[in-house]
Amino acid sequence: MSEVYAARRERLRERCAAGGSASALVSRPANVRYLAGAAPQGAVLLLGRTEDLLLCGRPLGDEQGEGRPDEGLRVQLLDASGGDAAVAGADLAAAQGADSLAVEEHDLTVARHRALGSVAPRLRLADLGGAVEQLRLVKDEEEISCLRIGSEIADQALGELLESILVGRTERHLALELERRLVDHGADGPAFPTSVATGPNSGRGAHRPSDRRVEEGDFLSVCLGASYRGYRCEIGRTFVIGTSPADWQIELYDLVFAAQRAGREALAPGAAYRDIDRAARHVLDSAGYADGLAPLMGHGVGLEIDEDPQLAPAAMGKLDACVPVTVEPGVHIPGRGGVRIDDTLVVRPEADGGPELLTITTKELLAL
Amino acid sequence: MSEVYAARRERLRERCAAGGSASALVSRPANVRYLAGAAPQGAVLLLGRTEDLLLCGRPLGDEQGEGRPDEGLRVQLLDASGGDAAVAGADLAAAQGADSLAVEEHDLTVARHRALGSVAPRLRLADLGGAVEQLRLVKDEEEISCLRIGSEIADQALGELLESILVGRTERHLALELERRLVDHGADGPAFPTSVATGPNSGRGAHRPSDRRVEEGDFLSVCLGASYRGYRCEIGRTFVIGTSPADWQIELYDLVFAAQRAGREALAPGAAYRDIDRAARHVLDSAGYADGLAPLMGHGVGLEIDEDPQLAPAAMGKLDACVPVTVEPGVHIPGRGGVRIDDTLVVRPEADGGPELLTITTKELLAL
Repeated sequence: MSEVYAARRERLRERCAAGGSASALVSRPANVRYLAGAAPQGAVLLLGRTEDLLLCGRPLGDEQGEGRPDEGLRVQLLDASGGDAAVAGADLAAAQGADSLAVEEHDLTVARHRALGSVAPRLRLADLGGAVEQLRLVKDEEEISCLRIGSEIADQALGELLESILVGRTERHLALELERRLVDHGADGPAFPTSVATGPNSGRGAHRPSDRRVEEGDFLSVCLGASYRGYRCEIGRTFVIGTSPADWQIELYDLVFAAQRAGREALAPGAAYRDIDRAARHVLDSAGYADGLAPLMGHGVGLEIDEDPQLAPAAMGKLDACVPVTVEPGVHIPGRGGVRIDDTLVVRPEADGGPELLTITTKELLAL
Repeated sequence: MSEVYAARRERLRERCAAGGSASALVSRPANVRYLAGAAPQGAVLLLGRTEDLLLCGRPLGDEQGEGRPDEGLRVQLLDASGGDAAVAGADLAAAQGADSLAVEEHDLTVARHRALGSVAPRLRLADLGGAVEQLRLVKDEEEISCLRIGSEIADQALGELLESILVGRTERHLALELERRLVDHGADGPAFPTSVATGPNSGRGAHRPSDRRVEEGDFLSVCLGASYRGYRCEIGRTFVIGTSPADWQIELYDLVFAAQRAGREALAPGAAYRDIDRAARHVLDSAGYADGLAPLMGHGVGLEIDEDPQLAPAAMGKLDACVPVTVEPGVHIPGRGGVRIDDTLVVRPEADGGPELLTITTKELLAL
């Protein structure tokens, strides 16, 4: 793996050099992990003139999910009295003779940025911008494989839950149960807080589980994901509780299903981000649900659960092959409930069979 | 409750006025919650010249633990196309005729700060610094009551775990089990990721649970806390697994216990932060464990699990009454394991009976 990280750092180094900085300080945790293999809390990566360094405030653990730093990278521990790793990094960059240091202005606070300036007053601080996020957009097969395994784990956890008795249990207990199952099946942990929404809560995006209990006739919508070796996937499904769904439930489900399928089918290398959004959104709009829709119909996933690209009406850019994204339209009718359907897929060219569906739990409307 | 939030905002307004700004923009989530009663993701509070406003990117849920915004405060939703709430806040401050806006430079990124400057170029951006954190230091009885309930919940969860079979179970399962029990007993959720450390891992600060299983003869150290209405407490205990502890285990336990007691006994209004640290640290130092000790022996708790004050060797300042803090010394011997003992207490004057212990689980060395 060491070559992978070294190659990523080399690509970043080239971008920095093109921008006029021979050195860079990466502080955003997911970016540190992408380039260094691990991102202990508070750690920063110095892409130096003479040497790259991972600066950490505490010794690295051997805990699962935290990652292992690239063996080709020197790890430097700050002393116990603490101090900010970014400040130490700027100090080191200056000591290496750098005259310019590109930093992540979208991550560093104003106060930290000022501290960097004070410790190394001769260093010109430039903006690295979203250069590392750009590199992270297209995944290699190793990364996709982590997402695939995470998706299998999430499918398993969800499948087991569906076999258990649901009526009478609270949203919070079901969410905890799902998270336990994710870990049972080998996840580092949940990719994001598991959402379980019943009855009038169903279909709401990112609903935080409450003490409401599952009742007969409810819609039940569930959104969960596994983090596996740091890679985070997402699956969302909606079910009906009881013998048979009501007519309005079937209609609403079919509509959201059609929107989600339209979004999935629009995924292709070269397709504009906004066109994926439009494909899904248009189906819901046409049925009179334009108001109250989520601002986006999907987003990239990887080391963060919500990363570029955003599949939104005003998004600029086009999909590449090997970009994993979610497609997750939903409709929520206040007071009544609703439906969300959410998959993680990898964009693939048609010659390779088109988009690869990672989350394979059925999207039929199941009555549980 | 509304008067409480209004009074907090009034105190902040006075501080801002003294600093030359008639308006302020609060973005750090715990600070927003403290002043507004709730802090939906991405929300900011504008302490305006003519009106205070909570600016949110999404509608407020009714989920437990999220808090309810102060009814005396207008809540303004940003439209679905998103946008940064802080930028919208700066725009509004300018529209209200403010010429200066104090912002949290320790929270805003350089990029967001610049966006504020662009949207309202005539507004002078000042630094609010840690003004809200200062206000949050001394808690009122309502806040302490939340910490007390949270501590009872954590004590219950821990007590139940101790009655179950432990040998053969993994750290990760025990941690998940504890978190489930916290929620069972009414917590919003865990106050921080629950730490369970066995055998050679025991005694490590903030150890992330691994797949190691509990074995006979292990030290088992557990650190957990409940979040209750947003307030976060912390308890840490170390146990021995099996029939009877080894001599080295008893010695080490007694030592850490003595250090923790010394720290607790030093808590009093007017005591210097560093003296609490020294009281506990000195006991461990004298026994030859100076190297490898944590940089601090305790810290404040409240809406964040790790807030001011820091009980550390170089900390400046003195304790006030009604400041809740942890006292949490520990020793970890690499390859062997160790002991941590951690309580949450509220500083009280001697006339009121001295420090109030919130986490009352026994600190005897239990053999389980």
